[in-house]
Amino acid sequence: MIDIEAIRTQFPILSREVNGKPLCYLDNGASAQKPQAVLDTIQRAYGYEYANVHRGLHTLSTISTENYEAVRGTVARFLNAPSEDHIIFTSGTTEAMNLISYGWAAPRMQAGDEIVLSIMEHHANIVPWHFLRERLGVKLVWVETDLNGDLDPQAVLDAVTDRTKLIAITHVSNVLGTVVDVKAICDGARARGVAVCVDGSQAAVHMPVDVADIGCDFYAVTGHKLYGPSGSGAVFIRPERMAEMVPFIGGGDMIRDVHRDTVTWNDPPHKFEAGTPGIVQTIGLGTALEWMMDVGMDDIQAHEADLTAYCRDRLEGLNWLNVQGKSATKAAIFSFTIDGAAHAHDISTVLDKKGVAVRAGQHCAQPLMEHMGLTATCRASFGVYNTRAEVDTLVDALELCHDLFA
Amino acid sequence: MIDIEAIRTQFPILSREVNGKPLCYLDNGASAQKPQAVLDTIQRAYGYEYANVHRGLHTLSTISTENYEAVRGTVARFLNAPSEDHIIFTSGTTEAMNLISYGWAAPRMQAGDEIVLSIMEHHANIVPWHFLRERLGVKLVWVETDLNGDLDPQAVLDAVTDRTKLIAITHVSNVLGTVVDVKAICDGARARGVAVCVDGSQAAVHMPVDVADIGCDFYAVTGHKLYGPSGSGAVFIRPERMAEMVPFIGGGDMIRDVHRDTVTWNDPPHKFEAGTPGIVQTIGLGTALEWMMDVGMDDIQAHEADLTAYCRDRLEGLNWLNVQGKSATKAAIFSFTIDGAAHAHDISTVLDKKGVAVRAGQHCAQPLMEHMGLTATCRASFGVYNTRAEVDTLVDALELCHDLFA
Repeated sequence: MIDIEAIRTQFPILSREVNGKPLCYLDNGASAQKPQAVLDTIQRAYGYEYANVHRGLHTLSTISTENYEAVRGTVARFLNAPSEDHIIFTSGTTEAMNLISYGWAAPRMQAGDEIVLSIMEHHANIVPWHFLRERLGVKLVWVETDLNGDLDPQAVLDAVTDRTKLIAITHVSNVLGTVVDVKAICDGARARGVAVCVDGSQAAVHMPVDVADIGCDFYAVTGHKLYGPSGSGAVFIRPERMAEMVPFIGGGDMIRDVHRDTVTWNDPPHKFEAGTPGIVQTIGLGTALEWMMDVGMDDIQAHEADLTAYCRDRLEGLNWLNVQGKSATKAAIFSFTIDGAAHAHDISTVLDKKGVAVRAGQHCAQPLMEHMGLTATCRASFGVYNTRAEVDTLVDALELCHDLFA
Repeated sequence: MIDIEAIRTQFPILSREVNGKPLCYLDNGASAQKPQAVLDTIQRAYGYEYANVHRGLHTLSTISTENYEAVRGTVARFLNAPSEDHIIFTSGTTEAMNLISYGWAAPRMQAGDEIVLSIMEHHANIVPWHFLRERLGVKLVWVETDLNGDLDPQAVLDAVTDRTKLIAITHVSNVLGTVVDVKAICDGARARGVAVCVDGSQAAVHMPVDVADIGCDFYAVTGHKLYGPSGSGAVFIRPERMAEMVPFIGGGDMIRDVHRDTVTWNDPPHKFEAGTPGIVQTIGLGTALEWMMDVGMDDIQAHEADLTAYCRDRLEGLNWLNVQGKSATKAAIFSFTIDGAAHAHDISTVLDKKGVAVRAGQHCAQPLMEHMGLTATCRASFGVYNTRAEVDTLVDALELCHDLFA
């Protein structure tokens, strides 16, 4: 079990107040707060060890390069990837999905080819495929969830045709908390020769991830949701897929030779990392992932399962509140609306007066919102540092909302 | 005049030693060190004010969004752009050039169209155009420098034909220090209806930049060279050009509406900024630019002109050393080789033993290196915190190199 108070004291921002109340930060699905270890890494990297990477032979450049490249191994360990060479650094899952769309999918798809998506994808895992629809005539095929927000892996596989080139699927819904059985989808897709791209932006925060076990072709994670710096991230790419990819972003570092009329490429993964990278963000991401693994991914999952169960019970006690997403195995993400006139934005504003930070809106998931017949919800999303007491604070504030708007 | 000691004390890393010697950091062309103000901004942003931007209504999200968006105005002021809406945030000049290549150039170019480049471009301002050569059959037209490393603006304009769609040109060479008369090039290009993309990655570090006066269509700057965080940057884009651009990176924030079979875009500049951005890096970039403007760009330029003159004199006194780039108006960037057997990498290694950090290699500028008939040089590149005493340290270390390798 984790020592929640010991963890909370490691996050400086958690001791602040908002509107005169202790901060109750439940917007982890949008971005997580950072432990002191990550802040210290950033300070040390800039204040004592900073230089550009891959470019210099002097001491600071060597230190910086070693610290930066070491994170590739940390990410591989975090995701149980077979080799650090299967890891490409990104600025986050949005860049990862665009890399896959431009670098792998676009050169091998043509009009009429199909991409299978679930209805609960985040825009980061939708818009890059819309580009292929607009530009190449690729068809997007959507698979819906059931009333609980569960997604039947067989329904995804049943949507595969002989024109399907890719299944792009989230591991955990950022709105419903639904955990998708991506392993079953990958098993079935592999038998049909279809690649699977998994959006792990939410999942990797809440549970151990094992890409070797899942058997996916692509798995993207977002650093700033993993208690790491903004502008950091990484994507696992199976080496067979990486070998099929063309360069996406062009510039220094990703080349072998540049002449006036020809250019040749560096070896993967560097072929897909152009220019000066997010050096200190990536080094900070390494610290964040080490921090998570030190806490223990199983313990994080167990702690959040407890929060999920407690929050589910408390919210079910509010008969004027509707929770979207009732999957039995859901992660600690709760979207909800309140009966009557209260708009999600108004609820969010009232909660904020009580120090409670939640997100209101469509959560970058408009197809899901349309599927549910909603324009906006509130979302409370939990992280490793949240407590049962904060669930109570949320419920108290919701009851105030209900009183105000009822 | 600037108070150099007062400035140096603001950079924590400058008080450290390397190999038992005071750090003499002359690798600013690769990346600059960060003042305490930037480190403090990062700590405050993560430690007290952090949340995702554009997504929430709660207090922290509002603070974070305001701090982030305020930087757009800071960049506009730094570049004298007419409006902050002409500024797009990037992760650096590499991303900026790819945005322009994918978003503006690719949709409007076809086989046989031409892009005019100088021979001294950085790979970031070459490879994105090579993509268009490979993928669309666009022709790259190269304009050479003279023996001093100067570039005649008229030679650039003379290379323009009725198939020229773009001139892509650096403002300051990262190898030679040459300052290009980009205003003259823009004047001539405008008369011919040709767009001009300026790589300001080096220039904006060393001199005041006025995009309104230059009259360029695109002007890219790199945050980590401007004493700001890694992974930050911005590009000025003339609104007529921005209106012609298609989206490049797809994801959240850059959309207006996403449905199953359609997608519409947000207004510029957000249309070109997808997903969770580099929040804290960009806020830190704002602090760095404010810091530079507080020091005073004219004073920075004057200080570096003094360093340039002094370094030129001292290096000219070494008759076994060859400086590449002898433009009379060059910025504080000195590439050099030593007669005899000493390879640039060996020189760099010896200098490092004396605490002197320089870069050795081809400096992401292979066409220029081939033009000069060299495979590698050393480069000492100066910043606001460097001193005449550090020039002396460099020269002493070079004399040791000469003794060792002669």
